[in-house]
Amino acid sequence: MDAFAYREALASGEAMVLIPVGSLEQHGPHLPLGTDTLLSTHFAAAAARRLGALVAQPISYGYKSQQKSGGGNHLPGTTSLDGTSLIGMARNLAKSFLNQGVRHVVFVNGHFENYQFLYEGIDLALEELGIKPGAEQSVLLLSYWDFVSQDTLNLVYPDGFPGWEIEHGGVLETSLMLHLEPARVAMDRRVDGPAAVLPRFDRLPVVPERTPATGCLSSAAGSSAAKGELLYEQVVADLSLDLARELDREPARVPA
Amino acid sequence: MDAFAYREALASGEAMVLIPVGSLEQHGPHLPLGTDTLLSTHFAAAAARRLGALVAQPISYGYKSQQKSGGGNHLPGTTSLDGTSLIGMARNLAKSFLNQGVRHVVFVNGHFENYQFLYEGIDLALEELGIKPGAEQSVLLLSYWDFVSQDTLNLVYPDGFPGWEIEHGGVLETSLMLHLEPARVAMDRRVDGPAAVLPRFDRLPVVPERTPATGCLSSAAGSSAAKGELLYEQVVADLSLDLARELDREPARVPA
Amino acid sequence: MDAFAYREALASGEAMVLIPVGSLEQHGPHLPLGTDTLLSTHFAAAAARRLGALVAQPISYGYKSQQKSGGGNHLPGTTSLDGTSLIGMARNLAKSFLNQGVRHVVFVNGHFENYQFLYEGIDLALEELGIKPGAEQSVLLLSYWDFVSQDTLNLVYPDGFPGWEIEHGGVLETSLMLHLEPARVAMDRRVDGPAAVLPRFDRLPVVPERTPATGCLSSAAGSSAAKGELLYEQVVADLSLDLARELDREPARVPA
Amino acid sequence: MDAFAYREALASGEAMVLIPVGSLEQHGPHLPLGTDTLLSTHFAAAAARRLGALVAQPISYGYKSQQKSGGGNHLPGTTSLDGTSLIGMARNLAKSFLNQGVRHVVFVNGHFENYQFLYEGIDLALEELGIKPGAEQSVLLLSYWDFVSQDTLNLVYPDGFPGWEIEHGGVLETSLMLHLEPARVAMDRRVDGPAAVLPRFDRLPVVPERTPATGCLSSAAGSSAAKGELLYEQVVADLSLDLARELDREPARVPA
Amino acid sequence: MDAFAYREALASGEAMVLIPVGSLEQHGPHLPLGTDTLLSTHFAAAAARRLGALVAQPISYGYKSQQKSGGGNHLPGTTSLDGTSLIGMARNLAKSFLNQGVRHVVFVNGHFENYQFLYEGIDLALEELGIKPGAEQSVLLLSYWDFVSQDTLNLVYPDGFPGWEIEHGGVLETSLMLHLEPARVAMDRRVDGPAAVLPRFDRLPVVPERTPATGCLSSAAGSSAAKGELLYEQVVADLSLDLARELDREPARVPA
Amino acid sequence: MDAFAYREALASGEAMVLIPVGSLEQHGPHLPLGTDTLLSTHFAAAAARRLGALVAQPISYGYKSQQKSGGGNHLPGTTSLDGTSLIGMARNLAKSFLNQGVRHVVFVNGHFENYQFLYEGIDLALEELGIKPGAEQSVLLLSYWDFVSQDTLNLVYPDGFPGWEIEHGGVLETSLMLHLEPARVAMDRRVDGPAAVLPRFDRLPVVPERTPATGCLSSAAGSSAAKGELLYEQVVADLSLDLARELDREPARVPA
Repeated sequence: MDAFAYREALASGEAMVLIPVGSLEQHGPHLPLGTDTLLSTHFAAAAARRLGALVAQPISYGYKSQQKSGGGNHLPGTTSLDGTSLIGMARNLAKSFLNQGVRHVVFVNGHFENYQFLYEGIDLALEELGIKPGAEQSVLLLSYWDFVSQDTLNLVYPDGFPGWEIEHGGVLETSLMLHLEPARVAMDRRVDGPAAVLPRFDRLPVVPERTPATGCLSSAAGSSAAKGELLYEQVVADLSLDLARELDREPARVPA
Repeated sequence: MDAFAYREALASGEAMVLIPVGSLEQHGPHLPLGTDTLLSTHFAAAAARRLGALVAQPISYGYKSQQKSGGGNHLPGTTSLDGTSLIGMARNLAKSFLNQGVRHVVFVNGHFENYQFLYEGIDLALEELGIKPGAEQSVLLLSYWDFVSQDTLNLVYPDGFPGWEIEHGGVLETSLMLHLEPARVAMDRRVDGPAAVLPRFDRLPVVPERTPATGCLSSAAGSSAAKGELLYEQVVADLSLDLARELDREPARVPA
Repeated sequence: MDAFAYREALASGEAMVLIPVGSLEQHGPHLPLGTDTLLSTHFAAAAARRLGALVAQPISYGYKSQQKSGGGNHLPGTTSLDGTSLIGMARNLAKSFLNQGVRHVVFVNGHFENYQFLYEGIDLALEELGIKPGAEQSVLLLSYWDFVSQDTLNLVYPDGFPGWEIEHGGVLETSLMLHLEPARVAMDRRVDGPAAVLPRFDRLPVVPERTPATGCLSSAAGSSAAKGELLYEQVVADLSLDLARELDREPARVPA
Repeated sequence: MDAFAYREALASGEAMVLIPVGSLEQHGPHLPLGTDTLLSTHFAAAAARRLGALVAQPISYGYKSQQKSGGGNHLPGTTSLDGTSLIGMARNLAKSFLNQGVRHVVFVNGHFENYQFLYEGIDLALEELGIKPGAEQSVLLLSYWDFVSQDTLNLVYPDGFPGWEIEHGGVLETSLMLHLEPARVAMDRRVDGPAAVLPRFDRLPVVPERTPATGCLSSAAGSSAAKGELLYEQVVADLSLDLARELDREPARVPA
Repeated sequence: MDAFAYREALASGEAMVLIPVGSLEQHGPHLPLGTDTLLSTHFAAAAARRLGALVAQPISYGYKSQQKSGGGNHLPGTTSLDGTSLIGMARNLAKSFLNQGVRHVVFVNGHFENYQFLYEGIDLALEELGIKPGAEQSVLLLSYWDFVSQDTLNLVYPDGFPGWEIEHGGVLETSLMLHLEPARVAMDRRVDGPAAVLPRFDRLPVVPERTPATGCLSSAAGSSAAKGELLYEQVVADLSLDLARELDREPARVPA
Repeated sequence: MDAFAYREALASGEAMVLIPVGSLEQHGPHLPLGTDTLLSTHFAAAAARRLGALVAQPISYGYKSQQKSGGGNHLPGTTSLDGTSLIGMARNLAKSFLNQGVRHVVFVNGHFENYQFLYEGIDLALEELGIKPGAEQSVLLLSYWDFVSQDTLNLVYPDGFPGWEIEHGGVLETSLMLHLEPARVAMDRRVDGPAAVLPRFDRLPVVPERTPATGCLSSAAGSSAAKGELLYEQVVADLSLDLARELDREPARVPA
């Protein structure tokens, strides 16, 4: 998109920009390092099509992988930002888009560990800009998995959902990738194994042997493109609907 | 405790220090502003008694209250730190105790929003000190509610658990306070109301009317000191046992 | 105090909050690590009673102990913050209380090394809030010992006052603790010795042998609860009077 | 690329990672906002193919556009990072890749204003890691245009080269885009005009009327895919050769 | 200058302050470490005389010397600031002078590596003060060598100008010093040698042997006070004229 | 001094560098803005001559002037750094000189408000360099007035010393300037007045009318070059002697 087309989009005063946020993080032998960025970008793009919104360049490096949710930051292939840098990214992008006249900025997160640092960056941006309750402009922050419904979970995990914390390289991410980015999934390289059993605390430095050798916290066995499609369609529908209601936008009748 | 007694405790090379982390945050009309600090201090003290550990001064100001988990930072009575300051607190305390020769430092968190910033502070401290996997020293981080068992939840919430996110000023915190700090609970000031229904995203600036007027996200109706005792005893037992196993310590047979 | 009682206190537009600031610092074998926090909290509480003000949670970790005023930061038991973290604490608390509508915030300092970092935090907060000379709101910063009168010094130190810089674990702090927190003072553990003779410069890294083995910079011999009472009553009276005059408040006729 | 394939690449001890660095910046009506990121990614990818190196996710947001080199940061469509955030990005990525065992990291810059902040981030990373002259590992930093030869300039600008500072949206960038990303160039939207005449100083706040309405500092008239191919082939050849010589690598005989 | 004379200068509302910026950096055996500060101070003072402006204390420590423009930061005698500190210096000084009512602040730079960090400091200052395009106040940033004309270059370098990047301790700086600070130049200590041939990339850690043993990147042979006078007079004239035109000031008819 | 002479000084392994630290701060109508920098530079230079040490470029901007010690930062002519920038300056300079092989670095302070921020910068530098008690290298920090003896005070202030806090533009600074920089003192512009009576707390924002109109906190009446000489000679002698003893250096028999 060129700057002049962008300015036309801004001219209405109703422009909405979705920023995908991911990571560069090991996701086992069958998924690419950029899985989180790819998935958040797909969700952001689909919602943007339905809402007539724009999609910005993704934030493609995320906060340090934690052992309890991503296997740990010590694993080669995982390349991360510290908290201050990610806060700075979110603060700068929120400020910059709002200063240009974007009405609503939505961060679409795909990497668990990012959330609080994005929140802090957004909060600092609004404080600096003096945007307070009741203002026209707003920033939203969400993680796409918070829009997966219980019905979908039941279908995707017929034997019971193992919990979000160990969904790293497991059925959800693998199925979504099989549906959305099949050429980037190497199911033949997939190594099966039991789900990680992680303690109720974080320990640092990590105890490396607690992370399965695959780097995945739960098995991808049972993943399928069909499950991925189901997940994707349901999340896109709910996420778009929620944003449309929240921000008084007419969702376009565009198929996802 | 004086410095010379402290040095004796350090001399074994096995000293363990628990640091309670709370907040100064509105908790409705019936609970004090310092609820999170009081509860984390009680849990830390009980575990310390069982494990022969020390308890440090609490971190009594926490990260900004978020609307989805604490009602929001706009409410008077809520006095918070930004992310950088809380990261700095955790980094400094972890570094300082480890430098003095403490073997294990445990942050016992009682305010949901703190977690990731504490994690970052700890990680930075270890990086600066060059403490890597396999080292003698370690830092643990936990939130006390992650040790509540399903059985306990079933007993405390006979009608079903409404979810951790809206447990702010609700049955869990109120019951624990009735058991541990009854003089600081004003059940006669309690105002009942339906649980908050919050969206699946964070929106900033907040929409103030989404937080119930009480500032509590779920009702405290049904709270009791007995439930508080049940919660407290079970969590202290599990938390102490987990720490003892993890850190090769003999749990003392001290009643909590 | 709960949030609703707090809001009533704010409603007058005249609310005043005192924040005690201390440290976790070795104070010899006879005084607890938290001496500075305990003393500043007592002074803040007494002044608050007289002035109808509120007392906030103390800042219980302070800036690094310096050899010339506190024995040095290398001594076990001394657990400190760096300058940036303490500036951040003061900045956040000043901003947060002023934003809630508190009219006057008063930092009551009990640890020598804190002062300039608290000052900087306050100054940054006011700059961010745009509060300039002539504004309704203000922040005050003081160290309690600056209110000890010459008459009191003459009585407490009949052989001559050795100077503020080496008053660390000496007669003043010990006497105050004997009066205010007798159960936390172990006079039987007190070790006597000559006052430290420290150079007119700071040297880093410190030369450890310059700090007496007790960690105290002057002797506590001659301390008494009676001297502590004298110090306490005189300081509370003067400090309250100064604040009352400065901030146009009627000092209550409450005995300290 | 998945984490296991990546680890195989690391195993030789000779892995080399190229990180493209761009911006999201207005480039007139005929070029996309992501021009700098696209071009640096193409150059990095081509060099990587020749050198058997890896290409990382690009840094797709850059330092604030300056009026003298990019038209200015006030123009809608330009979304930028402050210096601290970009320093943080470079520092984190350099540290992370070196810690994983990458031997040489090369930042391939495509946005003039980024350079010094990338340099600082790299320098801080090496200081933290203790990597000093003579070490095995290194980090290189370059801007692709520094590899354009005088011969190429003579061919691309038969009427004389106007200078690098005003090459923003001009013949060089447009020709490269016509060669590498023709579908993203809208030559029909191109607006012609004289080159900007900018003072020998930076002035802030900017004087907006000094930037041509197009946002381009020099005219794109005379751009062609053929010139782009010439530029691209020459730069890739020289850049690859320089890196190969510097880092003792055998350049593969892969056509760019 | 005393504060009351300064306030008179401010009273017109038209005060202009020039801040010289240099470095403490090795400049070979014949030039002093403070060469950059001395030269920028001379240029600032001369322009100030012509424009009726004030000259502030110089910033006498600069950003790290880079091998490609100053020989490298590893050389003894080079004492530098990191990026954050220099940004902070520029931000504080710009804010402070503008807050006092200075209308125009001009940073006159004499050390290549400083430029972008000064720019960032200025930009942050204006953002904090809310000074936007169209405002009365402004800050300018320039490097004195950008005002050397082509005619002057032809005269100073009859055999062709070797390029700004290797002008470190070479003919330009040496000639200027011979004209302006002859007592501080030790031409008898000058060591001759070929110009440095540096790569088109920065490499860190540096390869020390790439910097000539003299620390100068090009030869000072051919330097003379006469060339220095020519350079100085031409730059002062052009720089003063540009500033006068830009800021609507009548240049005084004072000989430089 | 050129870089090669400097390296010879380093070669002994015993090099000592003194860094004067001042401010740009109003000092009434009779003293220049740079008074603190001038005085600290004179003291550093005199001690350096006696000790065979080097003097570095001064830090000529200091921390914000506080009303109780310098009249306040709101007064035009006072141009200051925030705490973070001054900490950064001290940290960078200490690190840089120690890294070059300087054995002892001494900061000679001439502006009251600087002290704690310099201390913090030095402490951080040593932590980063891993310099611990017992190391060969050290950094010293002092304020010159701490070396004024009681005898000298009695002679300079025959009517009694009013206290260090209000010695700003008073007899001590004025007498020193009359002795050391007579051409920069305008005794005819001196305005007399009573000493400032300042409260025992700091209040922010300041109450401007508490600072006398002169900007001086005590009267300069009674200042003389003779008193300045007395002060200067006594301080230089004591300061040099203390440093010589502390750092095992033979003080040269050079008259100051």
